[in-house]
Amino acid sequence: MFLRNAWYVAGFSSDLAPGQHVGRKFLNQSIVLFRGASGRIGAVEDRCCHRAMPLSEGHVDNDIIRCCYHGLEFDASGACTKVPGQDRIPPTAVIRSYPIVERDAVLWIWMGDVAKADPATIPSHPFHTDPGWGWKSAHFGVNGNWELLVENLMDLSHLGYVHARTIGGNANMHFRTKTEARREGNKVMVTRHMPNSVAPPTYVDAAGFKGPIDRWQEISFEPVLIRIHTGGCDAGTGAYEGRRDHGFSMQGFHGVTPETDTTTHYFWSIATNIGLDRGIPDVVFEQTAFTFKEDQVVLEAQQKRISETPDGKFVNIASDAGSNLTKRLLKSLFEEEATGAVVAA
Amino acid sequence: MFLRNAWYVAGFSSDLAPGQHVGRKFLNQSIVLFRGASGRIGAVEDRCCHRAMPLSEGHVDNDIIRCCYHGLEFDASGACTKVPGQDRIPPTAVIRSYPIVERDAVLWIWMGDVAKADPATIPSHPFHTDPGWGWKSAHFGVNGNWELLVENLMDLSHLGYVHARTIGGNANMHFRTKTEARREGNKVMVTRHMPNSVAPPTYVDAAGFKGPIDRWQEISFEPVLIRIHTGGCDAGTGAYEGRRDHGFSMQGFHGVTPETDTTTHYFWSIATNIGLDRGIPDVVFEQTAFTFKEDQVVLEAQQKRISETPDGKFVNIASDAGSNLTKRLLKSLFEEEATGAVVAA
Amino acid sequence: MFLRNAWYVAGFSSDLAPGQHVGRKFLNQSIVLFRGASGRIGAVEDRCCHRAMPLSEGHVDNDIIRCCYHGLEFDASGACTKVPGQDRIPPTAVIRSYPIVERDAVLWIWMGDVAKADPATIPSHPFHTDPGWGWKSAHFGVNGNWELLVENLMDLSHLGYVHARTIGGNANMHFRTKTEARREGNKVMVTRHMPNSVAPPTYVDAAGFKGPIDRWQEISFEPVLIRIHTGGCDAGTGAYEGRRDHGFSMQGFHGVTPETDTTTHYFWSIATNIGLDRGIPDVVFEQTAFTFKEDQVVLEAQQKRISETPDGKFVNIASDAGSNLTKRLLKSLFEEEATGAVVAA
Repeated sequence: MFLRNAWYVAGFSSDLAPGQHVGRKFLNQSIVLFRGASGRIGAVEDRCCHRAMPLSEGHVDNDIIRCCYHGLEFDASGACTKVPGQDRIPPTAVIRSYPIVERDAVLWIWMGDVAKADPATIPSHPFHTDPGWGWKSAHFGVNGNWELLVENLMDLSHLGYVHARTIGGNANMHFRTKTEARREGNKVMVTRHMPNSVAPPTYVDAAGFKGPIDRWQEISFEPVLIRIHTGGCDAGTGAYEGRRDHGFSMQGFHGVTPETDTTTHYFWSIATNIGLDRGIPDVVFEQTAFTFKEDQVVLEAQQKRISETPDGKFVNIASDAGSNLTKRLLKSLFEEEATGAVVAA
Repeated sequence: MFLRNAWYVAGFSSDLAPGQHVGRKFLNQSIVLFRGASGRIGAVEDRCCHRAMPLSEGHVDNDIIRCCYHGLEFDASGACTKVPGQDRIPPTAVIRSYPIVERDAVLWIWMGDVAKADPATIPSHPFHTDPGWGWKSAHFGVNGNWELLVENLMDLSHLGYVHARTIGGNANMHFRTKTEARREGNKVMVTRHMPNSVAPPTYVDAAGFKGPIDRWQEISFEPVLIRIHTGGCDAGTGAYEGRRDHGFSMQGFHGVTPETDTTTHYFWSIATNIGLDRGIPDVVFEQTAFTFKEDQVVLEAQQKRISETPDGKFVNIASDAGSNLTKRLLKSLFEEEATGAVVAA
Repeated sequence: MFLRNAWYVAGFSSDLAPGQHVGRKFLNQSIVLFRGASGRIGAVEDRCCHRAMPLSEGHVDNDIIRCCYHGLEFDASGACTKVPGQDRIPPTAVIRSYPIVERDAVLWIWMGDVAKADPATIPSHPFHTDPGWGWKSAHFGVNGNWELLVENLMDLSHLGYVHARTIGGNANMHFRTKTEARREGNKVMVTRHMPNSVAPPTYVDAAGFKGPIDRWQEISFEPVLIRIHTGGCDAGTGAYEGRRDHGFSMQGFHGVTPETDTTTHYFWSIATNIGLDRGIPDVVFEQTAFTFKEDQVVLEAQQKRISETPDGKFVNIASDAGSNLTKRLLKSLFEEEATGAVVAA
C-alpha cells in the first residue's frame, strides 16, 4: 500500500547535472528525471507515447528529452514538442508529468493528485545548506517493502543487535533506557536520552571521546521522510539542557521512497557538525553506510520471509512503541486517501 | 497473438549436419529439429511421451532420435519405433510432428493445421543459391514480442536515430524523403528512393562511394518473412531506371519467428552483389550485425515497458504507414484464422 | 502433492555441530535446524514471531536460537524464552516446532500431525553405525519434483542409458534381465538378478573384478526413503544363495525430501563393505556422486518440460513396474491423508 498524496525524495540535486537524465521507478511508475540546459528539472512518464520506448534510453537536448527510437521530443510538462517527419503534433501526443521541486539539494516528487501538491509542505532540511554542517549522501536500493524500512528507522532497540560493531554499543543499555514516543498531527517523534553511556565505536572514531557520554537519539517521521538527530557530549556537560555545540551531532536524512510493492529507494544523507569544507569525516560516512548495509540485509531477509508467509502473524513487543505509532499514523493516512476524509489521530 | 497457418523460418540448413539435432521453441511449443544419417530432416515435439524427457537431450542415430532417459526412439513422423525391453509398441506412443521443408538453405516449419501446409507457398529467396551473390546468416534471440520486430523492420524512419553510426545516415534526410507503402494481397511493400543522398558509413566502407548516391530501400512483408533490398549507385547513373548492377546491392532476409509471447527468434541473412567466393565483405556483415544489435536493445527496452504498462496507449505518427499496413494485414489474418473466413483487405 | 504424516530426512548428524544451525525448506515450510550446547537438536519455524525475521540469520546460544534483529530467543519447543526490554513474554510469542529425531547419524523430521509422530516407525539404517561398513554422505539440491526422483530411483532400466559410463553397463543387458516388483504393506520392493554379467566400470574400479559377475539390485521404498542394495560376486560363487560377503556390496541410502513443489532435497549416502576406517574408496564415492549428477540433469530437464506442458500425457512402458507400484502406494497414502481413512493396497 502506498501513500500517494505526499512529497517523496526522488534523488539529490547532484544526481542531475544539466543535460543529464535518469530513469527511476517510484510507486510502481517508471519515470524519467531530467535537467535541461537551462537547469530546469522535469519528471515525466518514462514511456514514449508513440511506441512505448523508455525515454530514459534517449537524450536531453536544450530543455527537452528526445526518444531514441523515432526522435519524438517532450518537455518537462509532458507535452510532445516535435514529431520528426510531420508538422502537426497529434493532440494525444502527451505523457504524464509529475510535480518536482528542488530544495535543500534534494529532488522532491509528488506522486498523487496534482491539485494537492503544495511545495510549502515539503520538509525543510537546512543541514544540507548551513555552512556549519558538512554532509554526504547515498542511494541504496532495498529489496524490501518501504514500511519495513520506516519501521526499522523508527525503532532504536535493534541497534544493540544489528549494529553492535558500529553505532550500536551495548544491547542491554538500549533496553534499559526510557524511550518516549509521541504523535503530533502528522508527525511521530521518538526520543531517547542515555546519560553517562559508553560511547559507541563510530562516536569514538569521529569525535575522540575518552570517557562516558550523555547520548541522545531523536527521531521524527513525517510523510515520507525520517530524520534522526543523534549525538553525544562528555557526560555532565549540559547535553540535556540544550548545550550540544561542543559535542558530536549527526543529522540523518532518510528518504524512504517506494519503488515497487517489495522494493524501496533509500536516499539518505548524513550531516555532522564537525565536517571540514562542507564534507564529513570519512569514518562517519563509511561507518554509517556500513550500518545501513547491515539494515539492508535484515530488511531483505524479512521481506523474503514475509512474501513466503503472507498470512503470518506479528507479535508486538514493548520496544515497538515508536514504529507502531508510525504505522497507526500511516493507516489513518491511507484511509484518508481512500475515503477523502481526514481521519482523527 | 500468433499466426499459426504460416511457414516460419526454423533455422538455416547449416544449423543441422547429418546426425545433429537442436531444441528450439516456436510459438510456445518446444520442438526438436534433427537430421538423420540419410539427410532427412524431422521436426517433432521435444518431449518423450513416456516421462516428458526432452528429446533434445538425446541423440540421433540413423534416422531416429533416441531419448536419453530410457532409450525410446522416434522417427521424423513422430512415431515411436522402439521401446527397449518390450516387443510391442503402445499405440499411444506417438509425439506430434511438424511439416518441415528445406529450401534455399533455409529450414521452414509449419505450426498450424497440417492439411493447409502447402510448400508451394514458401517464399523463394534465390540470393542464397545464385552464384552472383554472396551471403552470411546469423540467429539472434530477442527478448521482445515478434510484432515489435516486424514493426521495426517495416519502418524506415528509425534509421536516422537508432543507426546513425552505420546504415542510418542523416535523420532529417530520412524524414524528407517520400515513402510509399502499399498492400497487395497478403503482402505489404514499402519503397523509398533517396536521390542524390549522402552515402551512409556502411555503404562507403563496402563499396567505396566517393560522392552522392541514388539510394533505394525496398521492403516487403509476407507471412512471416521480411525482405529488404537496399543499395545505391553513384548519383545519376540509372538506379531508378533499373540499372543497378554497377552499384551496391544488399538483400536482407529477416525470418521473424515467435518463440514465446515475449521472445522472438530472429533468423537473418545478408547477401550482397559484391561478395567473393559466395561470402560477403566482413565489413558488411559486421556492421549489419552491429545494426541489428542496436535494434535488439530498442526492442527489449520497448518490451519491458509494454509488459509493465499493458493498458498503455500508442499514438501513431506519419512514418508508421508501412508498419500500420502490416499490422492491419496481420489483424485480418488473425481474424481469418479465428473464424475460418477470409477477411477482405 | 506432499505426504505430510511421514518421517523425512532433514540432514545428517554431521551437518550440525553443537552451536550450529542451518535454515532449510521442507514441504514449502522454512525451518531452522539447530543444535544447542547440550547437543539437543531443535527444528522450528524459521520466522521470528515479532517481525518475521528468519531465525537462521541469528545465532545459537546455549540451547536457544536468538533472532538477529531484536534479540528474541526461542528454545527447541518453539517457546519464546526472552524478549529484550521487557519482563513479561507475550503468550502469543511462540513459533511452530517440528518433531525431530537423530538416529543412525541421520536427522529425521516429521512434517504432519504431531500426534501421529512415532519415532518407532523411522526406518533403521545400521550401515551408518556397523563397523563392518564404511560410508560417506552428500546433499544435492534438485530442481525437480520429489516424485520424479522417487520414480528415477525405483527404476532400473535407465541405468544403461543415463549411467553407461559408471554403474550402468550394457543397456540391452538391463532389458534382458527379469525384474520383480512387489508391494508389501507400505513398502515396495524391486529386485533384479543379473547372473554372469559384465561388471560395470565402478565395480571394476572398486573391487577389481577380472571376469563375469553375478550381480544384484535390490531396491526398497518406504515413505519417504529409498534404499538400494547393489553389488556383485564372481560368477557362480553363491551370490544368489546368500553368500555375498566375499563380493562387493553397496548400500545406498536415498532421502528424498520435498523442498517446494518443484525442488527436492536429495540427502544420500553410500556404504560399502570394503571401506577402510569407516570410510569408502574414493572411487566409489566419486563415481556415485557423478552418477547422481547425471540423474540430476535428467530430472531437471524433465521438470522443465513438465512445467511447460502441465496437461501432457505419460505413456507407460513395461519397465515402469516398480515405479508404478510406488506411485500407486503414494496415491493411496495421499488419499488416506486427505480422508483420514486407510485405503486398501
